[in-house]
Amino acid sequence: MTHSGRHFLQIPGPSNVPDSVLRAISYPTIDHRGPEFQELFSHVLAGMGDIFGTANQVVIYPATGTGAWEAALVNTLNAGDEVLFFETGHFSTLWTGLAEKWGLKPTVIPGDWRTGADPDKVREVLAADTDHRFKAICVVHNETSTGVTSRIPEIRRAIDESGHPALFMVDTISSLGSVDYRHDEWKVDVTVSGSQKGLMLPPGISFNAVSQKALDAHKHSTLPKSFWDWTEMLASGKNGQTPYTPNTNLLYGLKEALRMLNEEGMDNVFARHQRFAKATRAAVEAWGLEVLCTNEDEHSPVLTAVIMPEGHDADELRKIILDKFNMSLGAGLSNLKGTVFRIGHLGDLSDLTLAGTLAGVQMGLQLAGVPIKQGGLEAALDVLKDK
Amino acid sequence: MTHSGRHFLQIPGPSNVPDSVLRAISYPTIDHRGPEFQELFSHVLAGMGDIFGTANQVVIYPATGTGAWEAALVNTLNAGDEVLFFETGHFSTLWTGLAEKWGLKPTVIPGDWRTGADPDKVREVLAADTDHRFKAICVVHNETSTGVTSRIPEIRRAIDESGHPALFMVDTISSLGSVDYRHDEWKVDVTVSGSQKGLMLPPGISFNAVSQKALDAHKHSTLPKSFWDWTEMLASGKNGQTPYTPNTNLLYGLKEALRMLNEEGMDNVFARHQRFAKATRAAVEAWGLEVLCTNEDEHSPVLTAVIMPEGHDADELRKIILDKFNMSLGAGLSNLKGTVFRIGHLGDLSDLTLAGTLAGVQMGLQLAGVPIKQGGLEAALDVLKDK
Amino acid sequence: MTHSGRHFLQIPGPSNVPDSVLRAISYPTIDHRGPEFQELFSHVLAGMGDIFGTANQVVIYPATGTGAWEAALVNTLNAGDEVLFFETGHFSTLWTGLAEKWGLKPTVIPGDWRTGADPDKVREVLAADTDHRFKAICVVHNETSTGVTSRIPEIRRAIDESGHPALFMVDTISSLGSVDYRHDEWKVDVTVSGSQKGLMLPPGISFNAVSQKALDAHKHSTLPKSFWDWTEMLASGKNGQTPYTPNTNLLYGLKEALRMLNEEGMDNVFARHQRFAKATRAAVEAWGLEVLCTNEDEHSPVLTAVIMPEGHDADELRKIILDKFNMSLGAGLSNLKGTVFRIGHLGDLSDLTLAGTLAGVQMGLQLAGVPIKQGGLEAALDVLKDK
Amino acid sequence: MTHSGRHFLQIPGPSNVPDSVLRAISYPTIDHRGPEFQELFSHVLAGMGDIFGTANQVVIYPATGTGAWEAALVNTLNAGDEVLFFETGHFSTLWTGLAEKWGLKPTVIPGDWRTGADPDKVREVLAADTDHRFKAICVVHNETSTGVTSRIPEIRRAIDESGHPALFMVDTISSLGSVDYRHDEWKVDVTVSGSQKGLMLPPGISFNAVSQKALDAHKHSTLPKSFWDWTEMLASGKNGQTPYTPNTNLLYGLKEALRMLNEEGMDNVFARHQRFAKATRAAVEAWGLEVLCTNEDEHSPVLTAVIMPEGHDADELRKIILDKFNMSLGAGLSNLKGTVFRIGHLGDLSDLTLAGTLAGVQMGLQLAGVPIKQGGLEAALDVLKDK
Repeated sequence: MTHSGRHFLQIPGPSNVPDSVLRAISYPTIDHRGPEFQELFSHVLAGMGDIFGTANQVVIYPATGTGAWEAALVNTLNAGDEVLFFETGHFSTLWTGLAEKWGLKPTVIPGDWRTGADPDKVREVLAADTDHRFKAICVVHNETSTGVTSRIPEIRRAIDESGHPALFMVDTISSLGSVDYRHDEWKVDVTVSGSQKGLMLPPGISFNAVSQKALDAHKHSTLPKSFWDWTEMLASGKNGQTPYTPNTNLLYGLKEALRMLNEEGMDNVFARHQRFAKATRAAVEAWGLEVLCTNEDEHSPVLTAVIMPEGHDADELRKIILDKFNMSLGAGLSNLKGTVFRIGHLGDLSDLTLAGTLAGVQMGLQLAGVPIKQGGLEAALDVLKDK
Repeated sequence: MTHSGRHFLQIPGPSNVPDSVLRAISYPTIDHRGPEFQELFSHVLAGMGDIFGTANQVVIYPATGTGAWEAALVNTLNAGDEVLFFETGHFSTLWTGLAEKWGLKPTVIPGDWRTGADPDKVREVLAADTDHRFKAICVVHNETSTGVTSRIPEIRRAIDESGHPALFMVDTISSLGSVDYRHDEWKVDVTVSGSQKGLMLPPGISFNAVSQKALDAHKHSTLPKSFWDWTEMLASGKNGQTPYTPNTNLLYGLKEALRMLNEEGMDNVFARHQRFAKATRAAVEAWGLEVLCTNEDEHSPVLTAVIMPEGHDADELRKIILDKFNMSLGAGLSNLKGTVFRIGHLGDLSDLTLAGTLAGVQMGLQLAGVPIKQGGLEAALDVLKDK
Repeated sequence: MTHSGRHFLQIPGPSNVPDSVLRAISYPTIDHRGPEFQELFSHVLAGMGDIFGTANQVVIYPATGTGAWEAALVNTLNAGDEVLFFETGHFSTLWTGLAEKWGLKPTVIPGDWRTGADPDKVREVLAADTDHRFKAICVVHNETSTGVTSRIPEIRRAIDESGHPALFMVDTISSLGSVDYRHDEWKVDVTVSGSQKGLMLPPGISFNAVSQKALDAHKHSTLPKSFWDWTEMLASGKNGQTPYTPNTNLLYGLKEALRMLNEEGMDNVFARHQRFAKATRAAVEAWGLEVLCTNEDEHSPVLTAVIMPEGHDADELRKIILDKFNMSLGAGLSNLKGTVFRIGHLGDLSDLTLAGTLAGVQMGLQLAGVPIKQGGLEAALDVLKDK
Repeated sequence: MTHSGRHFLQIPGPSNVPDSVLRAISYPTIDHRGPEFQELFSHVLAGMGDIFGTANQVVIYPATGTGAWEAALVNTLNAGDEVLFFETGHFSTLWTGLAEKWGLKPTVIPGDWRTGADPDKVREVLAADTDHRFKAICVVHNETSTGVTSRIPEIRRAIDESGHPALFMVDTISSLGSVDYRHDEWKVDVTVSGSQKGLMLPPGISFNAVSQKALDAHKHSTLPKSFWDWTEMLASGKNGQTPYTPNTNLLYGLKEALRMLNEEGMDNVFARHQRFAKATRAAVEAWGLEVLCTNEDEHSPVLTAVIMPEGHDADELRKIILDKFNMSLGAGLSNLKGTVFRIGHLGDLSDLTLAGTLAGVQMGLQLAGVPIKQGGLEAALDVLKDK
């Protein structure tokens, strides 16, 4: 079936890429060993430092986010190292699995997939770890599978209070550029991120922001590495260079995306995401449906995961909405398959596109025979119109 | 103020241009005297014949629609000729004014800007014109200023019944590609059109579709002409050529737009426009507001003009909506300035973008303090979801 | 046959459009009645004033150059007016024909298609015209069919010396942005131009630059006009508006092209065109072929027309070059058909692309069996490398 | 300094990206978990199989070529494995270094950086390796630093004759799509490749083509891996899926590039590269300069490395050419720094752009004061014009 008009890409990433970013990535490729590239790369490295909130090092990989997860671990740890993970959802679980594949020993604090990593639990576990067996603590800032954020500053405080020396690693793949984040202020050691969410780019670039403490660990890390190795990356980066071929055209887009974010102002960007999340929750609640996230302090500004009422399949709903209204929504992942759908409200998004999105969800729910109450969309508009 | 996300261009033209058309017009310009251009131009000439519903001649001008109005008149008429116009709104009035500037003598059947050209009136006027003073009858198919269509087949029947020999000229600038239209079947002599509405292109191309009878009149027409002259246009066009420089890049876009329209199927395209118009009227009526068009048979599938309640200024509403929600709506023109706003629902448009559009109108009305009833947007969704 | 790599568009216009201009015209169309358009249009009007060298009025038409020719005449003259034309080639002849179609009475000073309009002849003819029958003098600045420029300042001086009141109209369609031009300083009354040559845009925009004297004549001009009418154009333009639909997307490109020209600096742009013309003539002469232009002071910086030796057909050569080397060259027009080919060296062009162009011509001449001497391309490189 | 016209990107990759590929990568990003992506990914997987000449498995990484080197090793080998490398130049040395970083034990057959891997040496070394210590033999098909190709079929034959079971791995990063290559026919076990050379894309995608024997080795390989792990890649790929986020927009470009290559026909593509290489060597030799490659059977169709005469610095030459003529050439790498420059003649390239390239080199050599003989460019044109 042919659809008129633009596709609504309302998954929690890749997010909608602005026209000017799309045009930017279509400029002719240049010599990445020439002066024009050096200027470009130095510019985006500096710009990403601002976005991460760090005066320390940033590494830009020509690879998608899973690679940056791997990079964080292999650059700092050693075979057999114990690592503390928190089961916040599908992505924290994937990261844990990646650590296992590399011969690390993850300890996972179990979770209910409806709340974030618990700072009190961090305090408790670290207090018990008097031998400092844990070399790293890994937390997903915004768990894309559940729409729950973890409270990084509070976790930092818990680590500090325990006096534990473990490295603190945070995955901000789906939060960076959408949710307030401060690598240096929160003393994060490795922040992992990617291009295709708050940064409004196509997928293909990923990042590590790296503290001095992480660099010190890097010196003694013996896990094998080459593509992900920080050493040459950081040495080359100082001169606006890369140790191997970068993906130049996406870097054009990154430059333009950074320009746009700065033009809007990061505080405005964060407030917009909060407002969109609030409007979305207002709709969900008015429909009489339940938001997956149960902790009022941990609602994601990036996406909202919605629980399907018993007897209804979220994937059938998504199929109806894709076929009839040409809109993609996020599926429930692993444990949540079929029981949850996810509405992305991040990146380059307007009030009216969000309104159209929620209209599509509402119509889809009706067409799927899901019993909902009147007034969901109107409740969202009540939030949106007050700005 | 910086806006996130895409602008909502919901004026009744220029309409939203599809991505693939925008990409098409950005291809490198070619030699318009070479074989590649010939193939392109022959292709779009043939394609436009299908869109007009004509096996006769089509002329493509590298100029916007006002030029095609002028072309229709100067190619067929002589100084002092009497021409019958119908005052359907702002654009019929502009066309009449253009005729006057050229020394033609328009007779205007007055109208209330809420209904189309009246076939009965045609019958009456032509019956009275026993000397056949009227050389041409000019009707605007879709009056963009009011959201009212005129019933061309019924007017044709009225002309036929009167046995009057006047040329029949129809402006389809804002209807072609959105509303069913049949140049040959309805025995129209000159159909005027443009690129930036149903054809989903940027403005810059305009058209005349020309009957044999119009060509016969052309032979005896003495109004001065060169740029608009059909003679060389048609002679060159036979060989895929143009007598002077064409605007090649927009023709790339026309080729792609024709491909898209054919892929969707014109019947589907027309039905979609009808459905969007119906949904929009459902919202307007549920809000307790009045649609300008008063004749149930003449509602435009392209746009809906809405009357502002007494004491409220439509332009203030439009300004609020532009500033807050980054959406352009059409203004009330001349007589209707401030008292009417127009919602475009044509071209490359999806259900969800229309829903977002109507959400923006609803929020704007509320913010502007216009008293509206609950349920407007919901009424529209009831229409949209039944497809 | 499939060709690898970019087409070489080395006709004397349309010229190669820079990537950034192509990307610019592919941005989404906006409401031409909104504030963003006003800003754009005011910007390009002011920028075009600089390019024309005028503090007076500029009119921008959403139509190709032939329309701007027509506009110059119909806005200032009256039926039966006598107009002095100079036969410099194909395009001066077309403009003359256009004047005739409009009921003007051209007097044509014959030419040999190898020299420009002769200032002495102007002096002579105007001296004889004691009744001031000539209402306008029309000259093509750069005759695209021959590669000959006319010396506008000297012609102006001749007019001044004769004390003749005729309007002075100059076609700069293929010179503006490539050859030094000064509308005010040279007291030109109407300068006609277009987008697809020195301005590095696709075709589709054309211009009139208008003196106060031309505006005075406009007030009394009775030729019928509407689309081309300056009155509303100038009134609207003051507010960044257009009286009817503009071709917005090409205006995006115009803004970008103006930015690029200003970045390079107009003096550098003019010098570059001179250098490329010199290099091209060096090649032609070293091949032992003859440049059409016979007056050393009148060589075009925009293109070089080359005479084919007896017994060889220029169009066959062009076909070989197009088929084998994927390069378009300009054909000989009307009188010159088959006996001349034209090499464009204008617009967005580099030394190396010109070198490739001349390499293609040289290989084509050899393949076509045209006897040429060794060393043509080398002679061009000798010019190009000294910069 | 501002340059008019397009940059000449004549490095040996990234190569010039065709306009239609650049436009393709600028289409809006889609949901990589939806049906449209599945269709796209299945399509490019199949297409890449054809390009590699394999009916076996292809893995597509969202990462640049260095990653695909790493992938080939970590998917098949075990810590401490001995691997046979051939020192053909800078890139073979980098790959060797990467193997060392991973704890493999490379044995390097030394080379003079002017010839390819020697099949006789392969025969000799493998005959001596009666214990089958070597688990893999790694050869760079086209050594981008020297412009020398290695004769893969002959090396295959040498391996076969020795009856040695080592895996055969070939880097085709700069040859695939430019030089004839047959993964299955030549019984290569892992072919490594990338997007930014013969495939005419920006950098950002890399590939492994994998034989059944390599898959068998993979099952027992214990080097740690996650991002590069074939297992999930191949499992997901069967359904047009990826185990983690792909870089979707570059895949749009890959689809278009494959379409273009197939349209031209791979045999024509290979012949074109041969012709361009021959023309380039003709120029170099006529200038009296020396091509780095000394083996007539091993000249690269992709690039030509040229030795600077004593007392002249290749990097100064490159700087002159970049500054004056806006052309990038490849530098001499490591051992060859300053003494060699490299001319890329691969990818989307025309005869005339190559002519312009060689004109730029010739002028640059003259400006740099390098003594060259007359007639270099002419010698190249003699090759180019015979097609």
